[in-house]
Order: sequence, then structure tokens, then C-alpha cells
Amino acid sequence: MHFSDQQISTLDKSFRRNLINSVTGFKSVALIGTKSQEGTTNVAPFSQIIHVGADPAMIGVLFRPHTVKRHTLENILTTKVYTINHITAEFLAEVHHTAARWQQSEFEACKLQEEYLEGFEAPFVRNAKIKIGLSLVERLDVQSNGTHLIIGVIKHLIAPEEVVGKDGFIDLEAAGTLTSSGLDSYHKTKRLARFTYAKPNVSLKKLLE
Amino acid sequence: MHFSDQQISTLDKSFRRNLINSVTGFKSVALIGTKSQEGTTNVAPFSQIIHVGADPAMIGVLFRPHTVKRHTLENILTTKVYTINHITAEFLAEVHHTAARWQQSEFEACKLQEEYLEGFEAPFVRNAKIKIGLSLVERLDVQSNGTHLIIGVIKHLIAPEEVVGKDGFIDLEAAGTLTSSGLDSYHKTKRLARFTYAKPNVSLKKLLE
Repeated sequence: MHFSDQQISTLDKSFRRNLINSVTGFKSVALIGTKSQEGTTNVAPFSQIIHVGADPAMIGVLFRPHTVKRHTLENILTTKVYTINHITAEFLAEVHHTAARWQQSEFEACKLQEEYLEGFEAPFVRNAKIKIGLSLVERLDVQSNGTHLIIGVIKHLIAPEEVVGKDGFIDLEAAGTLTSSGLDSYHKTKRLARFTYAKPNVSLKKLLE
Repeated sequence: MHFSDQQISTLDKSFRRNLINSVTGFKSVALIGTKSQEGTTNVAPFSQIIHVGADPAMIGVLFRPHTVKRHTLENILTTKVYTINHITAEFLAEVHHTAARWQQSEFEACKLQEEYLEGFEAPFVRNAKIKIGLSLVERLDVQSNGTHLIIGVIKHLIAPEEVVGKDGFIDLEAAGTLTSSGLDSYHKTKRLARFTYAKPNVSLKKLLE
């Protein structure tokens, strides 16, 4: 099938939403935990998460336009801290359910446990094995559609010792971290290979299979 | 294991690079195809790819600082067009090898075939099943570390008919699209579930298993 830009613009809205949200490929998916200035916690799933830099260690999250109430974005802009918590199959249904428009904290509504580090205000998700605590450093506004790229620097990185390799590589698959596609599909992974650094005219070797 | 920001800043450089590149979770990974003004084609793997919006249909790619020669970024800024091509296991070794510093076009060096659409200058990768042709619409410069978010609008979207669902959802798993983690690890996927839209106090149903 071939869709041109003109055809895409005339597609049924829901069809287009599913099509365009899935065509970027598999995504990171994680729970972002925040707390309002009044002390109400919030947790919700996000899949537009990207590596921004290793030194300083920074991560970006793209948020939809701030035209309606978006608790996660508001809490980050107000309190400047937030957490990113990886998702595993053990609590996947709870994760997807946090996306609903709950009146109370999604931690309570969806039976997820809050966890705190001393001196860091934002809630981590106890169920998660890999967790990151971030501090807001930059906000970029996309002119074309009003979305916001929120960039944070890593203040805390927590991972089970057995999944962190000697070279620093975190074996996400061994940790059970999931990936997502489209708006509502979640997947486990199966490693094909880790390759050595690519050089011209040198055959690739596999580090892991 | 718990790494604080201070510990992260004193880690061995290569260890930190692997650690921070893997902690964001599984990523999209795709080949970006471009052509220079002089007509030399270029193709290279990128994994910082995010959905920006469905209407207009826009995708973002984060590029490292433009302090050394970066052919893909230069070609996009000059010619304003580029392609994103999904990766499958059938040509994974060729994909990873395109990341090396080749003197000639990586298409030729890595035995990948170019493919063109009439009226669209950037090369698609024939080996890919899902391919996107984009036109540059916006460039955002990250002040914190000099990276660049390049946003393009989808001009062409190509996918096999059998993987595009009636609701627009593209079954990436059926198409054999891979995901990546860290700098050098590639993975197949196995669907756990597609869920219905999340509502408060309503049990989730699975659309697909």
C-alpha cells in the first residue's frame, strides 16, 4: 500500500492516528511518575522517549500540546523532577489502565506502589526494575504542531546488578523490559545479535546472540 | 545498582556511553536514506526516532552535534528530503555495517539497493518492507548539548497490504520490523497484547494476543 501526503490528510481520523503512531517503529514505553505542588502523585505511560546525550546523561520525552490539562507535563514544569520507570509483563494491565482519566492518583486507582529516594520528590514505581530519576533542564516547543520536547538530566539510575554488563550495557531483555507499537500494543523481545563496532571492509562479529 | 548523577559523571566514558544509551528502553531503529546535492547517496542507521504528530503526520529524528561531518544531517538540511526504512532480520548485518565510515555510498559498500519514487529525490532502501518519504519542516537545536531534532512531514508511506489493519494499525511484528537497544543490540518481538482504550473503572479487554 502507498499513501501519499494528500491521501493521509483525507483518511478517517482514527485510522490515521493508528497508522501514523505505528509507522515510526517499536518504541520505548515507560511510566512517568510525578507529584503536584499540592502533593498529589500521578503516573502515566509514555512512549515518545529518546536518548539525548550520555555526558551529561540526558533523556527527552515528547508531550502533546498543552491545550488541555496534562498533569504529568504540568507537574514536571512546576516541580522540575520526574521519574521514568520501565514496564514488565507482570504489571502490564495496570500500566495500560493508568492512561485512563482517573480523578484520584493513578498509583491508588491502578494498584501501583509509590517508592521514594531521600532528597528526591518525585515518586518511583516500586514494581519497576529499572528506574530513572530526572531533573528538568530544557523545554523545546515544536512550532509545527505545539508539542513539547522535555529534556531532563539523570539524577538517579537504578537497575538490578545482574542486568548491567561489564561494558555498561543494560540487558533490557533479561530485565523483562517491554517495547510498544502504535497506541496500544505491547511486546516482549528476543535478541538476534549484538554486533562489534562497524568498520569499513571488516566483517562484523557478534558480541552476543 | 544505584548510580547518582555524580557517579555517572565519573564513570569510564565507554561504560557510561553503553549504560545511558541502553537505559531509555527499546528503540525504533531504521535506515535513513539521503542524497547529496552532488548526487552521492547515503544510508545509515538511526535509533532516536519519535512520533511527533498524526495530522499533519510528522516524525522527529535526533541527530548528534553538527561539529564533525555528518552526511545524513547535511543532506537533509540541503535537499530537504529523506527516507526512513524499517529493518528486518534478512538484512541486519548490512544495516549495522552502514554505520562504518565508508568513503563511497553505503548502498554500494554494503550491498543495499536504492529505489526511487517519481518526483521524490531521496533514495528508499529496496530491502525494506515499510518505508517513509519525508520532507523537512522544522529543526530544533537542543541548547544543553548541541544535538538537533529534525522534524519531517510524511510525503509517502509504503507498507505491505497484509500488515495494515482495518483500523490503520500497522502490525510491525508481522512485517518483521526489528527494535534495538543500546548502541549495537537488535531484537525481534513477540506480542503480549493489544488493549482496548483505557477508561476509569472499566476492565481492559485485549484486542489481539
